[in-house]
Amino acid sequence: MKRRDFIAGAGAGALAAMPTLSAAQTAALPEIKWRMASSFPKSLDTIYGAAEFMTKRVAAATGGKFQIQLFAAGEIVPGLKVQDAVQDGTVQCGQTAPYYYWGKDPAFALDTGIPFGLNARQMVAWQLFGGGAELFREFYKAYNIHSIPSGNTGAQMGGWYRKEIKSVADLKGLKMRMGGFAGEVMRKLGVVPQQLAAPDVYPALEKGTLDAAEWVGPYDDEKLGFNKVARFYYYPGWWEGGAQLCTYINQKEWDKLPREYQAIVEAAGWEANQWMLAKYDALNPPALRRLVTTGKAQLKAFPRDVMVAAYKASQEVYKEAAAKSPAFKRIHESMQKFQTDQLLWFRVAEKGFDDFMHTVGQIK
Amino acid sequence: MKRRDFIAGAGAGALAAMPTLSAAQTAALPEIKWRMASSFPKSLDTIYGAAEFMTKRVAAATGGKFQIQLFAAGEIVPGLKVQDAVQDGTVQCGQTAPYYYWGKDPAFALDTGIPFGLNARQMVAWQLFGGGAELFREFYKAYNIHSIPSGNTGAQMGGWYRKEIKSVADLKGLKMRMGGFAGEVMRKLGVVPQQLAAPDVYPALEKGTLDAAEWVGPYDDEKLGFNKVARFYYYPGWWEGGAQLCTYINQKEWDKLPREYQAIVEAAGWEANQWMLAKYDALNPPALRRLVTTGKAQLKAFPRDVMVAAYKASQEVYKEAAAKSPAFKRIHESMQKFQTDQLLWFRVAEKGFDDFMHTVGQIK
Repeated sequence: MKRRDFIAGAGAGALAAMPTLSAAQTAALPEIKWRMASSFPKSLDTIYGAAEFMTKRVAAATGGKFQIQLFAAGEIVPGLKVQDAVQDGTVQCGQTAPYYYWGKDPAFALDTGIPFGLNARQMVAWQLFGGGAELFREFYKAYNIHSIPSGNTGAQMGGWYRKEIKSVADLKGLKMRMGGFAGEVMRKLGVVPQQLAAPDVYPALEKGTLDAAEWVGPYDDEKLGFNKVARFYYYPGWWEGGAQLCTYINQKEWDKLPREYQAIVEAAGWEANQWMLAKYDALNPPALRRLVTTGKAQLKAFPRDVMVAAYKASQEVYKEAAAKSPAFKRIHESMQKFQTDQLLWFRVAEKGFDDFMHTVGQIK
Repeated sequence: MKRRDFIAGAGAGALAAMPTLSAAQTAALPEIKWRMASSFPKSLDTIYGAAEFMTKRVAAATGGKFQIQLFAAGEIVPGLKVQDAVQDGTVQCGQTAPYYYWGKDPAFALDTGIPFGLNARQMVAWQLFGGGAELFREFYKAYNIHSIPSGNTGAQMGGWYRKEIKSVADLKGLKMRMGGFAGEVMRKLGVVPQQLAAPDVYPALEKGTLDAAEWVGPYDDEKLGFNKVARFYYYPGWWEGGAQLCTYINQKEWDKLPREYQAIVEAAGWEANQWMLAKYDALNPPALRRLVTTGKAQLKAFPRDVMVAAYKASQEVYKEAAAKSPAFKRIHESMQKFQTDQLLWFRVAEKGFDDFMHTVGQIK
């Protein structure tokens, strides 16, 4: 839409009264110090950086009165215990990936991303305008948590493989470093998911005690050097169209905050959500280029039969999860319905535009 | 990335001292009232709604002390005069689409979106991490403006046509409501761009004095009822992979703001950027469904020869613009370079994921 159409009703509202200030608080706002425990190490600097970005924004917006001190995984809380630590008030807040807690209730996984779920952009639309946020508000009540989406990786890579994956048969018995909810899907395909800490992955791939490993995407993967020991680099990471990170806040601490601070934290969280995705989008392309040139990585798409088998296995896992958890059933149904509509729309203007842009190199 | 890897360095930082408060201001923050002139009517409720969202967030984050009163196009400033009104201080700030001012300098167009330019997500990455924001900061100095991206429509539709467009030859002599920078490209393809206000478009299409019209996307288009008088609904709107709206702020007014308020306005603007895109993403699918079912719209992709001809014509327009404007040349070069990298990366994980999702309906 463009143009002169906007020059309607000129002057009509010019005399409208300025709004009266509603209950402007004159009392100075309190000084507050919080601790935020991250599930991530500083070395994942884009993810950890999003939490830093958020805490700095909050400090700047409050003139330094509201300080949130950030701790990396393990400094004060183990990375996978952030949810517990926020729930029981050990820390006021944390940065985490909800799907780490899918063992408590598979519904947690939906607040990060599930196999063949929403992509990063669709996730925001569902959270804000598709009922997602309300459903999670309800869900998190039992955990004494107020959650704010505040980061997304975008679609990830499908990981590093020592041998080519030519069909779904090649997955049988594959020892792969991966886990969580997606590991359940992989298990149905014959993969043997392995739990390994980052520093142990490289030597295991080198020795051949591990056949494959997934991490994040080019920027983070490059630092770990997996291309040197497992040259086949597959895409897409179908287990998350985008991994959403959240800021978990202890509900009682949240309720105690002045409304101004609540508004600032919420704005900063959502801002960080977009910021992190943008940062990955900027950092990933040069890393990918280096990996496939000097790094000699072999970039490969998963064969369609692997994708289809994984998709079918995912649907089974969802049925099992829904049978076990009413929360999963309720939230997943909302997400699926929303996704159907998103796919209808995205295949039109967005895909039409993006697909053409991917062909402009061929235009003479 | 998942798992136990994060439990590294446990305890190490636990004893780190809490940061000392740096210059926490004890003086109460001032009460400030601003006026924001929008380039848009209230009827474009998603776009206008993003400005409302932003002003409400600012009020909430300041306990009502910083009030920005929003005016629709024409109420106090004509829609296409928002940039002038902000520059000369008639209003402290405005909501607008920078490309309306491409006649002053084609570089303005780059801050909204250009034909075959970045999509909405890539735009954020370029602004924040590709040098875009810095380049515009420099550019806007001459206009006394501080600009904050604060809304995006996503890829738009290609408009409504009374007759089918089977090849680029069908564009010759086509009287189409559209304008701005993209109108220059269309002109090279033989289209005769027309300037018409929204209420005049429907009758002109009905009478046949107009052959085609572009507006935004399903949600906004549906309200105008164009499907009743021009049934062919084309995609994609190649003239903008995403139209970015901005909050323009008079530089002197910006400089006078306390730093807290600057941080709050910036966070709210970027938050609105994501919010508006999400709202369109949620509203467009049901509108599209209605348009193609009960509305009897014929959904069509532009033929490839039209896309290719438009792409080539765009490159000519860019050459002309770069010859005329050093700012356009400088900023466009940065954008193009960034886009090349984005396309490299997006065709891998994101496209791999999205493309597969568009085929899941076929899986039995």
